[in-house]
Amino acid sequence: MSDIEIAQQAKMRPIIDLAGETFGIPAEHLDPYGHYKAKISLEYVNSLTNNSNGKLILVTAISPTPAGEGKTTTTVGLGDALNRLGKKTIMCLREPSLGPCFGVKGGAAGGGYSQVVPMEDINLHFTGDFHAIGVAHNLLSALIDNHINHGNALDIDPRRIQWKRVIDMNDRALRKITIGQGGPANGYLREDGFDIVVASEVMAILCLATSRADLKERLGRIVIAYKSDRITPVYARDLKAHGAMAALLKDAIKPNLVQTLENNLAIIHGGPFANIAHGCNTVTATQTALKLADYAVTEAGFGADLGAEKFIDIKCRMSGLKPSIMVLVATVRALKFHGGVNKEDLNVENLAALETGFANLERHFNNIKNHYGLPCIVCINHFSFDTDAEIALLQQKCEAIGAKCVLSKHWAQGGAGAEDLAREVLAIVDNRAAEFSYVYDAEQPLWDKIETIATKLYGAAAISASPKVMAEIKALQVNHGHFPICMAKTQMSFSTNPNSKGAPSGHTVEISEVRLANGAGFIVAIAGDMMTMPGLPKVPAAERIDISDAGVISGLF
Amino acid sequence: MSDIEIAQQAKMRPIIDLAGETFGIPAEHLDPYGHYKAKISLEYVNSLTNNSNGKLILVTAISPTPAGEGKTTTTVGLGDALNRLGKKTIMCLREPSLGPCFGVKGGAAGGGYSQVVPMEDINLHFTGDFHAIGVAHNLLSALIDNHINHGNALDIDPRRIQWKRVIDMNDRALRKITIGQGGPANGYLREDGFDIVVASEVMAILCLATSRADLKERLGRIVIAYKSDRITPVYARDLKAHGAMAALLKDAIKPNLVQTLENNLAIIHGGPFANIAHGCNTVTATQTALKLADYAVTEAGFGADLGAEKFIDIKCRMSGLKPSIMVLVATVRALKFHGGVNKEDLNVENLAALETGFANLERHFNNIKNHYGLPCIVCINHFSFDTDAEIALLQQKCEAIGAKCVLSKHWAQGGAGAEDLAREVLAIVDNRAAEFSYVYDAEQPLWDKIETIATKLYGAAAISASPKVMAEIKALQVNHGHFPICMAKTQMSFSTNPNSKGAPSGHTVEISEVRLANGAGFIVAIAGDMMTMPGLPKVPAAERIDISDAGVISGLF
Repeated sequence: MSDIEIAQQAKMRPIIDLAGETFGIPAEHLDPYGHYKAKISLEYVNSLTNNSNGKLILVTAISPTPAGEGKTTTTVGLGDALNRLGKKTIMCLREPSLGPCFGVKGGAAGGGYSQVVPMEDINLHFTGDFHAIGVAHNLLSALIDNHINHGNALDIDPRRIQWKRVIDMNDRALRKITIGQGGPANGYLREDGFDIVVASEVMAILCLATSRADLKERLGRIVIAYKSDRITPVYARDLKAHGAMAALLKDAIKPNLVQTLENNLAIIHGGPFANIAHGCNTVTATQTALKLADYAVTEAGFGADLGAEKFIDIKCRMSGLKPSIMVLVATVRALKFHGGVNKEDLNVENLAALETGFANLERHFNNIKNHYGLPCIVCINHFSFDTDAEIALLQQKCEAIGAKCVLSKHWAQGGAGAEDLAREVLAIVDNRAAEFSYVYDAEQPLWDKIETIATKLYGAAAISASPKVMAEIKALQVNHGHFPICMAKTQMSFSTNPNSKGAPSGHTVEISEVRLANGAGFIVAIAGDMMTMPGLPKVPAAERIDISDAGVISGLF
Repeated sequence: MSDIEIAQQAKMRPIIDLAGETFGIPAEHLDPYGHYKAKISLEYVNSLTNNSNGKLILVTAISPTPAGEGKTTTTVGLGDALNRLGKKTIMCLREPSLGPCFGVKGGAAGGGYSQVVPMEDINLHFTGDFHAIGVAHNLLSALIDNHINHGNALDIDPRRIQWKRVIDMNDRALRKITIGQGGPANGYLREDGFDIVVASEVMAILCLATSRADLKERLGRIVIAYKSDRITPVYARDLKAHGAMAALLKDAIKPNLVQTLENNLAIIHGGPFANIAHGCNTVTATQTALKLADYAVTEAGFGADLGAEKFIDIKCRMSGLKPSIMVLVATVRALKFHGGVNKEDLNVENLAALETGFANLERHFNNIKNHYGLPCIVCINHFSFDTDAEIALLQQKCEAIGAKCVLSKHWAQGGAGAEDLAREVLAIVDNRAAEFSYVYDAEQPLWDKIETIATKLYGAAAISASPKVMAEIKALQVNHGHFPICMAKTQMSFSTNPNSKGAPSGHTVEISEVRLANGAGFIVAIAGDMMTMPGLPKVPAAERIDISDAGVISGLF
């Protein structure tokens, strides 16, 4: 059965009942969206402040491959397994982006028997958060061009506008556009472009904001452009945009509650890109789960070098969250890919390639242990093509580097298939304090922070940048030197070359661009070409997505 | 108090309870969106098919002016009044567009003590219908450029693509743009543009569709472009887009239930532009209200020459709906504006201008009586600036042309203020069959239909068109001669000149463009420049919109 078919057979419980029975969330603090989705009121979230914190478990992965690793699936499977073992656990996931559903990827709500439901709703519109983010972003865009059209009293340099437009669609034709054509009634001609909604700074802001006041303050301090003197920033608050933007996010700021196939609660809230943003769900969602449950299982985008690093250095640093452990998800197929096997040949046993590709896992494991200061369990997300010899080899390789390695069959078996993993996680987190390390200090200069990340985590020998970029970093250092770094590099490799698999070393990381995300509160350091607007493939998933006369959706994976 | 302050003091009932108690709608057929909004399942809608129909009352208006007429306010006030008189009544309104909220207009959920609530939700995102329409539209746009990028197997002529992109924002800079810039990875360069979401054909389709199957069929037959032979149409179904588009509209197709300040039910569903589309809420919503209630009060966009004509000739013709009466809303201020008074001087008594401007009302009244074959009551929507002498003159002028005229104070007094109006409406609709006339026959050639509308309703002497447009109409006649016409002309005047107030006669209506809306099933005849993407004013309403730390929204009128 396909994921959607499994999801459609789920016996869902009414979410208000489930939330009340399992965690005592009062119905009046839940805004239902249909019968199986609800938003939690901020008043209720705030009422939990004095509760003690549960243990925070982060699921991360080796460097992503086209073979798929199953990070969300593992987060759900592990959470279901913990609940099966009688441990009160809530899962915290990112909201899927709508655009990619119609491209290659299909849905993003777990897979097999480890899914969150209602799967169609979660993948299509959900509770409207991303639409609200998109409108808030585009309101600011419209206000910028409107301000210039009506006389430009703020002296915005139209050549130095940083704020693009966004749409939740994979649409390459909108990457670079010219706007304001057609004469004076349509404003001034300039170059612009659309990013996908998950790349919006508004998304990053929503995910890091700790209250409505903080949200509005962050929105107001977004730097949208520079004045004609080239150096004076223009802020969103100069356009009086932040009040209306925050009003548009009035519901988006509230965490969303859904359930797994096994009727355990999951909070799905926020979903920033893991390259030009920090790739984690909202601070509010994670904190709420920790206040309600004894264990919260969450995920971060891409591999342990990207999403997990930002989870530590951005999300935890800003919010005070303290993780207890990381689970590093790998598959035999993905490791063989890192060992040089073509995508088409991954189902064939190949011990040599597995051994070679293991270098990728080893680097991530050591990074977690040595640089995040956290215990790490390797989870082999089982595929039916995996051979016994491959699994045995992988376990042996893990043992050799001192890594606990658990074969997990949650995709096929749900929570029952991840009980071993859950037991190993419990054995560690129940017996240690939630201590961890940041990769760099907040006080280090921006350049040093980037260098620290690249040399410690990526195995790079050095970083470099053009004189122009160096000067920009120097300029940002003056007022924003204390900001954390949000590295934007390819997720496919430790280096900046996506084709460099395994665990490359000694390379130079060239910083091609830096961007100030003043509202989010970090500096984006871009290494290589970053895609902030995906395209659709030759045969888009949209072609197979359908709905029956009775309203049953098909073709969404 | 401002509209939003009045709305925030409303004592709302939980919508599920209210719907169950007043009309017996079972809770399991309602999808709650928070506690005060709900969607009605299509299964329930279909279960009502054999119920008898209530009486359908259409609220329309004189030609709109910047002074405001209060059509939505009157629809709500009249509905509340009918309920006060013990008549089971449901109001059917259009959903407000988000973009204009941030421009001049502010909210659009009635006014004063005749409003629908929750006002902030209805104006901001509501249940997400317009977002879903926008994404469905833009998915098709992305699929078109993606198809061309991947080899253009369908031989789409990129110069003859009819399908633009949409956004729910007043953003003049997006009216005319160039897309696909930046090299081969971003596709092929071409001119494009964004319309506001309410102008999307997907919106018109959703409002006219009678089932999920009909919706998908209509989406599939949208003409997106022509092939390089210049004449062979390319349909959305050729791109296999219609299944995914219909899936995106899975919830948008369900009518939305809210309540008035007086706790009476209102269905708010759909909101197409009244110029390039037909300007009425969904057929599904109106039919549902008629099956549930004894009276349904609804509205149509702009004046009685535009929205009401399309209500008759498009919505009623396609759906079999039968109106019983039209209520023609006018204000003393608006009539003075039609009589030549400047916007700034409308609060000063001016009997001469009122008398001159009355010509506009008279033409609309006669059109309704003679060409729609319906009884018409004139409703004077009372403003505190109106003088006794002005009201007396207006009543006397109405009497002289045989028009029943009722002064109505629902803005200030809610339903109680519209009881006189309600009684007059009842006196008529309870004593006549629901008979009416179309303005033209479906069998007339397209050109004749346009001419009939212009000469009968607008007082025009003739219509004209360039040889190019004439040829296009001739070409459309072959396969689409039976389609109704959707006239797109300025709403400000009976002529095509927005500054020609009152009741101009003898003018020529120049048809500058025709467009095939094959999914909606009508031909758009454009007379003059039609704005399908508004701009923001120098001081946008967005600047004053705000939200407090506790989540209370202000500045939304």
